[in-house]
Amino acid sequence: MLEVELKVKVPSLDPVREQLRRKGAEFLSKVHEHDIFYNAPHRDFAITDEAVRVRYSGGKAVVTYKGPKIKKYGLKAREELNFAVESGEVFETMLLRLDFTKTIEVDKWREYYRFGAVSVSLDTVDELGTFAEIEMIVEDEAENPTAQIEKIAKEIGVKGEPILASYLEMLLAKKPEVQS
Amino acid sequence: MLEVELKVKVPSLDPVREQLRRKGAEFLSKVHEHDIFYNAPHRDFAITDEAVRVRYSGGKAVVTYKGPKIKKYGLKAREELNFAVESGEVFETMLLRLDFTKTIEVDKWREYYRFGAVSVSLDTVDELGTFAEIEMIVEDEAENPTAQIEKIAKEIGVKGEPILASYLEMLLAKKPEVQS
Repeated sequence: MLEVELKVKVPSLDPVREQLRRKGAEFLSKVHEHDIFYNAPHRDFAITDEAVRVRYSGGKAVVTYKGPKIKKYGLKAREELNFAVESGEVFETMLLRLDFTKTIEVDKWREYYRFGAVSVSLDTVDELGTFAEIEMIVEDEAENPTAQIEKIAKEIGVKGEPILASYLEMLLAKKPEVQS
Repeated sequence: MLEVELKVKVPSLDPVREQLRRKGAEFLSKVHEHDIFYNAPHRDFAITDEAVRVRYSGGKAVVTYKGPKIKKYGLKAREELNFAVESGEVFETMLLRLDFTKTIEVDKWREYYRFGAVSVSLDTVDELGTFAEIEMIVEDEAENPTAQIEKIAKEIGVKGEPILASYLEMLLAKKPEVQS
């Protein structure tokens, strides 16, 4: 399974949303995600390429650990561990007691759409702006997902440079002082 | 509120259990608790007097962080943070990825009884043996909980030196190599 995605910064979500509606895309849900990222006291996640995140969404809290990116079968991959916690606040307090430090918070509103073979999400990210993401899951590259995604992007009016950075990386780039 | 407890090593739980039954104590429940303790990579919890524990019991996993003992209002106290996790195994995997180390596992079967104003628990602890614990919660020391507890201990045949150490401390004392 291969997950291929295109993320583009758009000046406004309105025309993309309008195109999705006109082309018959199915609106799935809208969620607010409040992410809080922590750094470790004994190594710098910015250097080791790891992340510990507490995500609050829909009244629930889920902790995610992301390991360093590794190359596997010629693809980029990284270990991702997820577990729901009864109380994200108590988990965060434990991190602080263990001298982990809060690095950054990401506030994101995300609308999910299904459009044929792809998923489209329209994101509004605090301090960063609005983004459209088109994602496709394929069995292998023979299906040429890139061409399919580019065709759909054109169809729904998503134009611009593909963004490879995560929102966390984009926010950290804006605030270099928290990286140290 | 003051929690006063007496813990004594007993050669067998059978006579204590028998006395509890004869005196009309109420059997509440029997639980198996599997505790796994971790140490941190950036400081030694044996020195800082902290603990991170994952407790598996009744199909659930609860994480506990215990802070250093502090003196408050003349009493010993310590911060204790508890939160249930959806998967204790995934939480433990995250700890290992962050270079926390598993120090010790404690396997304990505990029977709970209510006996008048006190709670009695009969513990069978792997590698340590059998213990009876009598606990009383009082408003203040004017109620003389110690005298009451000692009276009940005599009544149900709990004799011996009071043990102040936790099972963790007792196990660590038996296995000094894991402390380093």
